[in-house]
Amino acid sequence: MSLPPSGAPGKPPIRSIGVTSMVNAGAMSGSGNLMDFLDEPFPDVGTYEDFHTIDWLREKSRDTDRHRKITSKSKESIWEFIKSLLDAWSGWVVMLLIGLLAGTLAGVIDLAVDWMTDLKEGVCLSAFWYSHEQCCWTSNETTFEDRDKCPLWQKWSELLVNQSEGASAYILNYLMYILWALLFAFLAVSLVRVFAPYACGSGIPEIKTILSGFIIRGYLGKWTLLIKTVTLVLVVSSGLSLGKEGPLVHVACCCGNFFSSLFSKYSKNEGKRREVLSAAAAAGVSVAFGAPIGGVLFSLEEVSYYFPLKTLWRSFFAALVAAFTLRSINPFGNSRLVLFYVEYHTPWYMAELFPFILLGVFGGLWGTLFIRCNIAWCRRRKTTKLGKYPVLEVIAVTAITAIIAYPNPYTRRSTSELISELFNDCGALESSQLCDYINDPNMTRPVDDIPDRPAGVGVYTAMWQLALALIFKIVITIFTFGMKIPSGLFIPSMAVGAMAGRMVGIGVEQLAYHHHDWIIFRNWCRPGADCVTPGLYAMVGAAACLGGVTRMTVSLVVIMFELTGGLEYIVPLMAAAVTSKWVADAFGKEGIYEAHIHLNGYPFLDVKDEFTHRTLATDVMRPRRGEPPLSVLTQDSMTVEDVETLIKETDYNGFPVVVSRDSERLIGFAQRRELILAIKNARQRQEGIVSNSIMYFTEEPPELPANSPHPLKLRRVLNLSPFTVTDHTPMETVVDIFRKLGLRQCLVTRSGRLLGIITKKDVLRHMAQMANQDPESIMFN
Amino acid sequence: MSLPPSGAPGKPPIRSIGVTSMVNAGAMSGSGNLMDFLDEPFPDVGTYEDFHTIDWLREKSRDTDRHRKITSKSKESIWEFIKSLLDAWSGWVVMLLIGLLAGTLAGVIDLAVDWMTDLKEGVCLSAFWYSHEQCCWTSNETTFEDRDKCPLWQKWSELLVNQSEGASAYILNYLMYILWALLFAFLAVSLVRVFAPYACGSGIPEIKTILSGFIIRGYLGKWTLLIKTVTLVLVVSSGLSLGKEGPLVHVACCCGNFFSSLFSKYSKNEGKRREVLSAAAAAGVSVAFGAPIGGVLFSLEEVSYYFPLKTLWRSFFAALVAAFTLRSINPFGNSRLVLFYVEYHTPWYMAELFPFILLGVFGGLWGTLFIRCNIAWCRRRKTTKLGKYPVLEVIAVTAITAIIAYPNPYTRRSTSELISELFNDCGALESSQLCDYINDPNMTRPVDDIPDRPAGVGVYTAMWQLALALIFKIVITIFTFGMKIPSGLFIPSMAVGAMAGRMVGIGVEQLAYHHHDWIIFRNWCRPGADCVTPGLYAMVGAAACLGGVTRMTVSLVVIMFELTGGLEYIVPLMAAAVTSKWVADAFGKEGIYEAHIHLNGYPFLDVKDEFTHRTLATDVMRPRRGEPPLSVLTQDSMTVEDVETLIKETDYNGFPVVVSRDSERLIGFAQRRELILAIKNARQRQEGIVSNSIMYFTEEPPELPANSPHPLKLRRVLNLSPFTVTDHTPMETVVDIFRKLGLRQCLVTRSGRLLGIITKKDVLRHMAQMANQDPESIMFN
Repeated sequence: MSLPPSGAPGKPPIRSIGVTSMVNAGAMSGSGNLMDFLDEPFPDVGTYEDFHTIDWLREKSRDTDRHRKITSKSKESIWEFIKSLLDAWSGWVVMLLIGLLAGTLAGVIDLAVDWMTDLKEGVCLSAFWYSHEQCCWTSNETTFEDRDKCPLWQKWSELLVNQSEGASAYILNYLMYILWALLFAFLAVSLVRVFAPYACGSGIPEIKTILSGFIIRGYLGKWTLLIKTVTLVLVVSSGLSLGKEGPLVHVACCCGNFFSSLFSKYSKNEGKRREVLSAAAAAGVSVAFGAPIGGVLFSLEEVSYYFPLKTLWRSFFAALVAAFTLRSINPFGNSRLVLFYVEYHTPWYMAELFPFILLGVFGGLWGTLFIRCNIAWCRRRKTTKLGKYPVLEVIAVTAITAIIAYPNPYTRRSTSELISELFNDCGALESSQLCDYINDPNMTRPVDDIPDRPAGVGVYTAMWQLALALIFKIVITIFTFGMKIPSGLFIPSMAVGAMAGRMVGIGVEQLAYHHHDWIIFRNWCRPGADCVTPGLYAMVGAAACLGGVTRMTVSLVVIMFELTGGLEYIVPLMAAAVTSKWVADAFGKEGIYEAHIHLNGYPFLDVKDEFTHRTLATDVMRPRRGEPPLSVLTQDSMTVEDVETLIKETDYNGFPVVVSRDSERLIGFAQRRELILAIKNARQRQEGIVSNSIMYFTEEPPELPANSPHPLKLRRVLNLSPFTVTDHTPMETVVDIFRKLGLRQCLVTRSGRLLGIITKKDVLRHMAQMANQDPESIMFN
Repeated sequence: MSLPPSGAPGKPPIRSIGVTSMVNAGAMSGSGNLMDFLDEPFPDVGTYEDFHTIDWLREKSRDTDRHRKITSKSKESIWEFIKSLLDAWSGWVVMLLIGLLAGTLAGVIDLAVDWMTDLKEGVCLSAFWYSHEQCCWTSNETTFEDRDKCPLWQKWSELLVNQSEGASAYILNYLMYILWALLFAFLAVSLVRVFAPYACGSGIPEIKTILSGFIIRGYLGKWTLLIKTVTLVLVVSSGLSLGKEGPLVHVACCCGNFFSSLFSKYSKNEGKRREVLSAAAAAGVSVAFGAPIGGVLFSLEEVSYYFPLKTLWRSFFAALVAAFTLRSINPFGNSRLVLFYVEYHTPWYMAELFPFILLGVFGGLWGTLFIRCNIAWCRRRKTTKLGKYPVLEVIAVTAITAIIAYPNPYTRRSTSELISELFNDCGALESSQLCDYINDPNMTRPVDDIPDRPAGVGVYTAMWQLALALIFKIVITIFTFGMKIPSGLFIPSMAVGAMAGRMVGIGVEQLAYHHHDWIIFRNWCRPGADCVTPGLYAMVGAAACLGGVTRMTVSLVVIMFELTGGLEYIVPLMAAAVTSKWVADAFGKEGIYEAHIHLNGYPFLDVKDEFTHRTLATDVMRPRRGEPPLSVLTQDSMTVEDVETLIKETDYNGFPVVVSRDSERLIGFAQRRELILAIKNARQRQEGIVSNSIMYFTEEPPELPANSPHPLKLRRVLNLSPFTVTDHTPMETVVDIFRKLGLRQCLVTRSGRLLGIITKKDVLRHMAQMANQDPESIMFN
């Protein structure tokens, strides 16, 4: 997705601009006793403009200042003491609220998706808001063997023309399925277009960018929250090849943003707000998979930029609260927290590592293929006419998906049900086509320990249906991800892997059954033993494919570990995840989220990239050779008019202040917006300030001729501790400093003389250039 | 522990000093075409001296350079390409080796401890190297009911005087128990004193300091590894109140250090070496508890300083390999990975949160008490004569422990067995005294679901024995931790918590049984139901006490989660861990490891501490007001003799280089040892260099009178990108920069003029001063 123009709906208007925080400049000037007219409380809001980068050091400094103020005040009265306690606890309160809301929303989404997915096939007569399962569950006529059949649940053909079998009933059901899918998809894309353009996509690339210190107003707003939740239900129910896991992270982050706006500690400090958002992302994954630890690690590994230890603990709390809220809503009706609960009864054997690693290779190849094709398609959407008709595109893809999906039982049902079935081991009670093995009539074994058996007709049918479904999924997902609707990638990726894995698993199982005298099977697979679990292969394949697309590692394995709940299967999962990452990395280092960040030109300085070129700060700084000199302010020789002209003629975010144009010795840095506000304020309120008043940044006013106008003191807007590096500093160090300290800009000096400036944008452009990419693709500052 | 003098045994001699890496200076000078005599390969070893702090930025820069070199070479020939591949894989190979060795050592330690602990009570006649359990396991005469009794296993009284019952047999066994304990302890303390003084203590405070960038040569050496492994077995077997978990982390880090010394990538770069050590620490915890994920989080949360994401993934790999190696050794004989495997059959109820939180409060109080008393005792040991007789101290404490411990069955056995028993639920087959409930004779229930029953005599006996054991453990642990033997704190802390928890649990259980009509029980505890699991209380108590002492949070809960294997009990564990942390933090922010770091004056800049004072860089920098001016070098006006005098008269690690003494404009920074080596080299090898040769750091030699001696060019030793801040920079920012970038020193300027220097030691001293501590307690630089 690309960012809509500034006046887009769902985006709150830029709030009235107050003179922004002088706290930092004040603390740094060390001249707290010299009160001047700017020394009054100003509202802190709107410190950063939209699409700008925050200065982490400054935010941190502001928070320390706030904290210091509260601590010193708390000794004054009991009320202030209680307020300081409340302030200290507000972090935990926010986490609790995020957990509760994220868990509730996830539960509601699950229930609604369940119902609406079934609505495509039929309706419950006793209560139309019941899903198929709930309908038959409440009915008395349901037998245990035919849990899915009950008279209260009627297919559309039964309801409309009173036919349940035959070609015409099939066609009617087919048509109703397509119609509902189109209706859902149309509603979703329209809602997104009209109310919240930011609600589309998975949201993870944008959240990564926001967490790295970028401002996108409205991206985590209340409208986005509402519309994303509603449209997520619609698109998942429409049967499109997408999942709800990624968008759930976005939804949780919107919750986080909402609750952090209730506490001034977080709402007024963009740095602190990002701590809350990191925790919210953890809560999002926690409810998406029922994996709280995996969620925290996902936030740590994949999403967050700065992850202080305090955040780790709070994220964990939020993730747990969210998971338990979801469990008490119990949308899956099985008291289980996890999306795909599995229990295997057979260990794995060393020889099986070979197919597991093969699945890893497949996952890596799939990841590479998907990222390349999807990015190519998204680029085409951005650059050609295609992007102008998002509604038509969604309708077309939905129609194609529904038409092709319906005839194949493995694509007709919802993708998460499909994955669930593929993961499952074939127990004695399993009625699935995938478990249609030829049973030995003499077998009298315990239920759970069924030996390997020859495949029956059902398994062979399932195999080719799965193969068709696999090809279809691979193709359609490439076109689906990136449309203007909420769309997650976890579930389709896992489905691709699970299908491939199950097929490999059945293959290995049949091979082992029919050829158990082969040397590779002889040691561990005697006849009549239960050696191969095809469900485990499906799980390993799912992990490999997800890893290939997202390049997650530890969090992926931990999420899978939380699904199975046993350390037993970590080695196969790890082998596949590592292989898949290696294979995919060989073709390109970027995961899908980084690729989309680059495609959209977000100013994201990845902590994982290593900068290995030998360039120096002098090669990157502005002005370049031949460019006009750097726009600077002098400490005590420019008039108000000079400065106003400079501000008008340039669009820099700030100006270095030097002793004089000759010596160019740096004394500080002044922010553009603070300069503007200070001059405006002074002109309105301070007497004697005219266009040719001298502006000075020193502590004492300069000596002026007797008849000159009153000078204007601006020391308060001067940041006396600008960050500097020498021109010989290697760029790898500069990049490191930008990353670790979260700078916005950095001044370049040589022997104490100011030479130039490097902004975050310059760094990103330089990195793009070094990687042979178009430096102009970095769009924002 | 305090650091022994430089010539202590177990510490390899400082290696011959070569001219140290110019790579960085070279890369930074940007004048790679100007070859001078220093431009030849020098051995990189010994870049830092013992008890010095490393410069992380520089190490990183050196590694990038190395990497760049390998990459460019790899295109030259196939052999170089293979070498580059090997280099890329060496990280994984090191992890694999660490995992294998750490797992093996842990297994061997477990087996040896098992055998030697039993040796205190008796000996196996069939094979003296069998432990009690192994002895009876191999014997045919063992019955299932009396697993612990078999004729082959003979108590000392049976073997020596052929008596198994009676007062004299008891006294003989008692004496033998004490004698063995004393022998083990004496051996341990002597081995530590003679061969490896660094092997004492838990090692975690020192490892934290080392990982933060400090050099303690020999602390992770091969001798330490060997001696710590052997003495760990001895002290644990001696029955002292200590555990093997903390020292296992030290042992694993020694393995990490050993393997990293085999690969030049790690051995020559202190920064990269620390990545390996972080992963090794994770492997250590992984084998200590059988909790790989918890181990990784422990390393992340508690031990490591810089934890790049690459390290996360590799740590996880190392932790898993270690865990599986341990499992294949199978020291506990139950195929389980975890130290205390538990399975509970009853859920917990909301009303139980109250006792859980009470246990949290107890844990916090215990943590505070322990830290205060232990630090006070250790300080006394450092400052009084007590510290001079470490062997006597160990002997005395061992004797007291053995004398008091033997009569009480709960202190006689090994602490981990005790914890295991306390954690266990009372199943139908449990023969423990703690499970001596009065059974309902009519009961015909399944084995696992036993309703609450009234306590029998055994339970009451157990209660007062536990109470005595609890008091004894609390007191003796304070005196044990910190003696000159390897000693971990996890197990004693957990034991204290488990005893308290079990007692509370039995209390609640009996209350619920006898008063199930009370309003607090009525809703969830009907008569005949199994409501309260005392074992769970023990587990919660253990978590609370461990949390109170170490202030671990997420890793603690995850370790406990891996022990129980179910999300079910995370909420009680979290409630207790959070409460315990809050209570303990209210009395003092420092965990036991930080307290020991402070006690020993290690230069550790904690990432968790927040610096909130309003001081500026100018308040901290040297020289202070009234002190002599900063020792600087000028770029082209000092003679060789001037510099040699300066070096002789000062002991600074480096000198800033300025344009001239008048302008004081900074151009770079020269390391002391590089200066010394360069001058020495030049005097030996370069013609015409005499004492009054001019030294210059500029690119071109200065213009000199015709008859002056040949000048000496030293640009190669000049770091052209020294880190600078302005004098107005708030100290909170300076502290942040030191932490995040891992600096050694930072220069302070005002308007481009050099004012002073801030070293890591200055920062630490300032922080100590601000916290009203003695700034001179920071001992090292």
